[in-house]
Amino acid sequence: MSNATSTDLYEVTMAQSYLNEGMTRSATFSLFVRILPPDRGFLVCAGLDSVLDFLSAYRVDADDVEVFASVLGRRPEDLAPLLGLEFRGEVRAVPEGRVVLAGEPLLEITAPLPQAQLVETYVLNQLNHQTSVASKCARCVLAADGHPVVDFSLRRTHGIEAGHQAARLGAMVGFAGTSNVAAAHSEGLTAVGTMAHSYIEAFGTEEDAFRAFARSHPGPVTFLVDTYDTVRGVATAARVLRDLGLGPGCAIRLDSGDLGALAVQARTILDAAGLRKTRIVASGGLDEFAVDSLVRSEAPIDTYAVGTRIGVCADAPYLDSAYKLVEYDSRPVMKLSSAKVTAPGRKQVFRRPGYADLIALVDERPPPDGVPLLESVMREGRRVSERAELDTARQRFMTDLAALPPGARTIRAPTVPKAELSRRLSSLTADVRRYIEKNLLGGAHEAV
Amino acid sequence: MSNATSTDLYEVTMAQSYLNEGMTRSATFSLFVRILPPDRGFLVCAGLDSVLDFLSAYRVDADDVEVFASVLGRRPEDLAPLLGLEFRGEVRAVPEGRVVLAGEPLLEITAPLPQAQLVETYVLNQLNHQTSVASKCARCVLAADGHPVVDFSLRRTHGIEAGHQAARLGAMVGFAGTSNVAAAHSEGLTAVGTMAHSYIEAFGTEEDAFRAFARSHPGPVTFLVDTYDTVRGVATAARVLRDLGLGPGCAIRLDSGDLGALAVQARTILDAAGLRKTRIVASGGLDEFAVDSLVRSEAPIDTYAVGTRIGVCADAPYLDSAYKLVEYDSRPVMKLSSAKVTAPGRKQVFRRPGYADLIALVDERPPPDGVPLLESVMREGRRVSERAELDTARQRFMTDLAALPPGARTIRAPTVPKAELSRRLSSLTADVRRYIEKNLLGGAHEAV
Repeated sequence: MSNATSTDLYEVTMAQSYLNEGMTRSATFSLFVRILPPDRGFLVCAGLDSVLDFLSAYRVDADDVEVFASVLGRRPEDLAPLLGLEFRGEVRAVPEGRVVLAGEPLLEITAPLPQAQLVETYVLNQLNHQTSVASKCARCVLAADGHPVVDFSLRRTHGIEAGHQAARLGAMVGFAGTSNVAAAHSEGLTAVGTMAHSYIEAFGTEEDAFRAFARSHPGPVTFLVDTYDTVRGVATAARVLRDLGLGPGCAIRLDSGDLGALAVQARTILDAAGLRKTRIVASGGLDEFAVDSLVRSEAPIDTYAVGTRIGVCADAPYLDSAYKLVEYDSRPVMKLSSAKVTAPGRKQVFRRPGYADLIALVDERPPPDGVPLLESVMREGRRVSERAELDTARQRFMTDLAALPPGARTIRAPTVPKAELSRRLSSLTADVRRYIEKNLLGGAHEAV
Repeated sequence: MSNATSTDLYEVTMAQSYLNEGMTRSATFSLFVRILPPDRGFLVCAGLDSVLDFLSAYRVDADDVEVFASVLGRRPEDLAPLLGLEFRGEVRAVPEGRVVLAGEPLLEITAPLPQAQLVETYVLNQLNHQTSVASKCARCVLAADGHPVVDFSLRRTHGIEAGHQAARLGAMVGFAGTSNVAAAHSEGLTAVGTMAHSYIEAFGTEEDAFRAFARSHPGPVTFLVDTYDTVRGVATAARVLRDLGLGPGCAIRLDSGDLGALAVQARTILDAAGLRKTRIVASGGLDEFAVDSLVRSEAPIDTYAVGTRIGVCADAPYLDSAYKLVEYDSRPVMKLSSAKVTAPGRKQVFRRPGYADLIALVDERPPPDGVPLLESVMREGRRVSERAELDTARQRFMTDLAALPPGARTIRAPTVPKAELSRRLSSLTADVRRYIEKNLLGGAHEAV
């Protein structure tokens, strides 16, 4: 089986029908997020690299056809038109790390209709999840206001693959390290770690545990101080660090209780012991809201370790994303029912100063102060450029972040910039709506 | 690289220190959920099969040691004690599909300390995520009150691996099918699917699209009716179904708007067309709360398709789970700081009628009406029994569900049964706490 079976069944049945009907002309699907989750002022694009890997390798082989036939209760011969199908389309997308707003296409795929349809499930899955986590991580970096943030999420992400992505996406927006060994190794990230409560408990006393850890690990160590009683734990850590002549580069970790108040007490104890260069790491259920409160209260915490809530994007574990057909065979299309109206046509987004973004049709002239966000990243099923480095994506994020209006950077109740539709796009939307109301709902069968 | 690098770095540094110190005696770690998320009356155990696969294959090979050394900035020779380490321990666990309560161990691992520590991250990751999703799916089945529930979550789960698990876990608790092709094939599930709005839009009119779909797919079809105007869409679907002599086994799908009210209108139209056996499928942002409301309002919906909110477990995307050292070298241990006190010692849970569960020490005599929940599933690193079939787990779930008090089955604000600690366990907890307060916090170094 290739990756072609990682799909919803209906992509297969629709593609089969398109092939049977000879409906293989060019279609464009547009992927965007309808509205941002609460407390989000922006999104950070992510997942494109995974999507391009998938599309490059996409091919329905004989094993896939067997699987399709088997789950449909049909004979493989019935699905023969799908055999050998590859993705040969064009992808225009906003590069990883760039900041986008609600309604702006993150990606547009233009390909023969069956191809563009078959890849929907995977493309949505990756862009949705990765953009969601990257955006959450970005808010942690903002909240930490210059303090290092590190990723401890692997134990509670939705599987190992999701943990790997969380580590990578954190690094993309500026995290200083990750506890995830495999991700650190394969993505070239800084691996970080301390010790668990079980480690202290196995030794019995904190002092024995701290001394043993330092024996095994030359260089800076981080001692966990809240197993029995935090203030006593800090005092013990300070004594051991002094005895061993350690301190600079070393740290203590607070993992429970009132982190702000305990950090003040810990700082006092460490300073009194002459350990002014011993740092304080805080962890335990932290997210951007908690980090923001701690930073605003000027808690003497040096490093924030975020985990569970970031890795699962706890307050918004999915985005209201959609992969919508906007054009088929040069005919703009849209959906009308309920509140989910989509604007038709292939699009471009022009960023203007202050994030006064303009969503326009792809062939519109850029406004004088506007820069296009979507770039051509794949043609005829092949990547147009080299695989992007994580550093490049981080640089893009940092540049876009610097230009973001202060209100959108706020952690709680941000002011959300809103993209405008160009006059031509608004007018096309109205035209297509009128056409559908008059002709399709009226019963006529031909298309606009 | 083997699976040994799917870990937090601190598991590696702690294990290395244990080996250097000769601390390789038997340790028991206990995995449990401290408190249930809001609106949860119970949990459904899941993930054990993945955990046992991982533990069976666990081995630190030379490539892993290279990775460890590389991320630690050390030489592979420094980590030589880890080379060749395998998991040779014992696992006692509650089988997949069984219902458990807060505080009850889902799993206990007893192994030489470095082994039991090294596997923590993966074990927590899988049991946490899978139990969380299985429990959410179980609530959907309860809410649907006998109506079939199907899984449409793949496009928004946290990666493809998480999507596969959602499909499997739904089936474990009684879902009737999944849209996930790969999962349906490899887990032997019923694959289900309909058509997308893009399919209608590509054809232009609903009638052309419905007829084309029926041409390609002999047998029952499901027509999506809300692309332009739902009521007209249902009328068109009814006309096409009648013209083609279809109906029984076929369905229409509502995917937006007021699903309850639209289902009433759709039922009226279908019945008037003589299509009494054409079913109504509802989808679009459904979770157990929405399904519960629709079922209570007696909406004429036959099948509920749940997706995003279930696959990501939207209202509780993680559990407050912990993997805690409870015994080392026959010495019971616990953590004292903050509210996170853990009870020491190896444990067993006895289920008594009405879920009056008793958490006891492993060597306690069962109460007369109590049945043990934890079973021995792995000894010396090998599975004790065959891999569990999904059907077996489903049977366990159905049996446990039938015995669950009605209050715990409620979708909103359930009455949560609470497990009691046995007298011996309470007394041991008090003893260990006294010991720590007197000896470890007092400065003495020997252990209880």
